[in-house]
Amino acid sequence: MAISDSQHISQEFEKELQDIRTKVLAMGGLVEQQVADAVQSLKEADSELAQGVVRKDKEVNKMEVAIDEECTSIIALRQPTAGDLRLITAILKAITDLERIGDEANSIAKRTLSLAEQDRPKKNYREISVLGNHVRGILRDALDAFARMDIDDALKIAKEDRNIDIEYEAIIRQLITYMMEDPRSITRSLDLMWAARSLERIGDHSKNLCEYIIYLVIGKDVRHLSTKKKEKIIKKS
Amino acid sequence: MAISDSQHISQEFEKELQDIRTKVLAMGGLVEQQVADAVQSLKEADSELAQGVVRKDKEVNKMEVAIDEECTSIIALRQPTAGDLRLITAILKAITDLERIGDEANSIAKRTLSLAEQDRPKKNYREISVLGNHVRGILRDALDAFARMDIDDALKIAKEDRNIDIEYEAIIRQLITYMMEDPRSITRSLDLMWAARSLERIGDHSKNLCEYIIYLVIGKDVRHLSTKKKEKIIKKS
Repeated sequence: MAISDSQHISQEFEKELQDIRTKVLAMGGLVEQQVADAVQSLKEADSELAQGVVRKDKEVNKMEVAIDEECTSIIALRQPTAGDLRLITAILKAITDLERIGDEANSIAKRTLSLAEQDRPKKNYREISVLGNHVRGILRDALDAFARMDIDDALKIAKEDRNIDIEYEAIIRQLITYMMEDPRSITRSLDLMWAARSLERIGDHSKNLCEYIIYLVIGKDVRHLSTKKKEKIIKKS
Repeated sequence: MAISDSQHISQEFEKELQDIRTKVLAMGGLVEQQVADAVQSLKEADSELAQGVVRKDKEVNKMEVAIDEECTSIIALRQPTAGDLRLITAILKAITDLERIGDEANSIAKRTLSLAEQDRPKKNYREISVLGNHVRGILRDALDAFARMDIDDALKIAKEDRNIDIEYEAIIRQLITYMMEDPRSITRSLDLMWAARSLERIGDHSKNLCEYIIYLVIGKDVRHLSTKKKEKIIKKS
């Protein structure tokens, strides 16, 4: 093969990889918006906004299937190795997490619709919307770290998930107290509990995204490792 | 390359693919046992069994990481195409679901440990152990369909997930009634609710496994499609 041919193919390949990264970020952007809208709908009891989240879930699913196909076809046609291959396998995993974040946003929106049919005292909503903004923030940061392939930020965000868990547990404890004090609030409190649970899961998925970033940049699988071990591995890299 | 060399490589490759399938089934077997033990521990209030489930979760995680590495190295070294590539990308996704099923079994076991510290009335456990056995059954069937690459069974099992959801919803409704009738039962009922939720998720993950089987056998991504559409696609294949 002439050098110019092989250069041409390699440029095309680069373009395909770039294209797929752009699509993952677009999917991430949509999913982030879904989370933001879901949290907003819950906070403001905005059924219309919640219905929009439910409707757009299909778009998220379609994006996942399309990126998935593109990844598989790149592997088949380009037979990538090393870093390029890691990028693609990491994307294959990352879009599953993005899709599930979309599912959780969808669940939160459904809780908004269920809550819309009930009495609405003011309390409980402040904490959950604080948690919602926090979770949305780490998702945005994770996507941002992916765009910049920044492993130091990825590690920082993965660590932050611990704080999400602490906030989540405090909300659950508080809701249990409300339920015990006033059994009439049980149904409503449960809706809020499921919504909080979804937010906590979104935190977990965001953490997974960060672990994929570390994997694709330095080639080490850091899932299931403690933060200390992760830090050590990153320092060595 | 001499024909005998290429035959030799292809035999080696076949052996590697077989080996990876065996490992996925071993991981599936372990995860299935974790689910069985978790459900049993809940039903019998067996803290020791529950602790065993929590301990073994690390093994599941290790298996995921090992299979993951093996898949990536096969793609890099063997540059598989078509069916072989589909098998590997499907496995990459399937082991994520298996690992999360392991996580859910772990969560159920933790609920057993939490329940062990509370009063234990007999009611509520029958329904949840029926659901547990049902979920365990569809997980086992899904793994079995994977071993035999049986798409008809895969479709049947994916359909069955709808019944799991119905059973799950009935349990949740029942638990809400108990909570309202007797607020002292709230903490205990919530533990059972989270356990039921974990079982429902295991059903979802088992359904995902079935969708990967269909994908790897006929090359069509049937996720997010209705049962009717799935049936149509399988009939045509």
